[in-house]
Amino acid sequence: MTASASLRVLGVDPGLTRCGLGVVDVAKDRRASLVGVGVVGTSADQPLDARLLVIATAIDEWLDRYEPEVVAVERVFSQLNVSTVMGVAQASGVVIAAAARRGIPVALHTPSEVKAAVTGSGRADKDAVTRMVTKILRLDASPRPADAADALALALAHAWRGAAPGSPSAVGRTTTSASAMTEAQRVWVEAESKARRKR
Amino acid sequence: MTASASLRVLGVDPGLTRCGLGVVDVAKDRRASLVGVGVVGTSADQPLDARLLVIATAIDEWLDRYEPEVVAVERVFSQLNVSTVMGVAQASGVVIAAAARRGIPVALHTPSEVKAAVTGSGRADKDAVTRMVTKILRLDASPRPADAADALALALAHAWRGAAPGSPSAVGRTTTSASAMTEAQRVWVEAESKARRKR
Repeated sequence: MTASASLRVLGVDPGLTRCGLGVVDVAKDRRASLVGVGVVGTSADQPLDARLLVIATAIDEWLDRYEPEVVAVERVFSQLNVSTVMGVAQASGVVIAAAARRGIPVALHTPSEVKAAVTGSGRADKDAVTRMVTKILRLDASPRPADAADALALALAHAWRGAAPGSPSAVGRTTTSASAMTEAQRVWVEAESKARRKR
Repeated sequence: MTASASLRVLGVDPGLTRCGLGVVDVAKDRRASLVGVGVVGTSADQPLDARLLVIATAIDEWLDRYEPEVVAVERVFSQLNVSTVMGVAQASGVVIAAAARRGIPVALHTPSEVKAAVTGSGRADKDAVTRMVTKILRLDASPRPADAADALALALAHAWRGAAPGSPSAVGRTTTSASAMTEAQRVWVEAESKARRKR
């Protein structure tokens, strides 16, 4: 697989307490591979500046180590718990600025877009998202905690859905014949067509 | 005035459309001097990553140029307009992480704390804050726009109020006799005692 034949995406599920990070390579035939996954956690006992510094340092390390072509970040909504949303937004600001500083394009995706892309339903629960991520990436064990699986789902959803308007284009959507598909790819294509019907 | 005899504070009124930046030196006798003031603006037409990069670059430049001992940032509340608050929080995250990356302490102050510190009333309007900032800093003209004045008010309020718990201590509160006070200092001390009575 050459660099031009696949897209490397870093997905980030931002948060102060737990910030999920997941890197995947997605080939033109949609086959996806896990590159790295993890969670950066900070304690509510720490001052805000220390917490944001931990996240800033981690995102810089991940960008250095994995050199993603695009960073997919969960779009933050104010519908969240009021005391949580500010920290999520502050963490996402740090992540987006870190990517922008390196000239790496940033794409924002809503939680329901990600759920629909990965499971076929925009209202899927966290367990369903984790199960599908595990299946798509052919993992022996589910990524834990849910924030890690969410970050991988974001990265997959970005590569799979194509880019948002104004963002760089994602992996080309080549047609894959059913016979050549792996189980995960078939599930994926089904999920995609389900998601399309819902729109 | 030696470095140890005064405190240099960078105040930041975070925002995506307009981010106010103001630097003051505050001596132990509370006399405050303007060091620098400005506003970084980005357009809502730009993508979020480009906007946050402009703010990240600006804050880095200001930290390099003025080398503040502490950065005072407006504490973001979710009571703001929903569409605005996320951008404000994201911008504040970028600013706080930039300071933390350099080991510069960050103090957060609420808008009402700042208003009370500078005008004596936590419910003062923007014009009153601008007027007092102009007076305290002995400026010939008011800082414009209001975001610039707000950033200076934040910096002044931080130096004047003392530090928040867990933050570095601010300028020592030496007693100033009324006869030795300038007009601005007298107004300031009055505002302080008014603010104290309200608590």
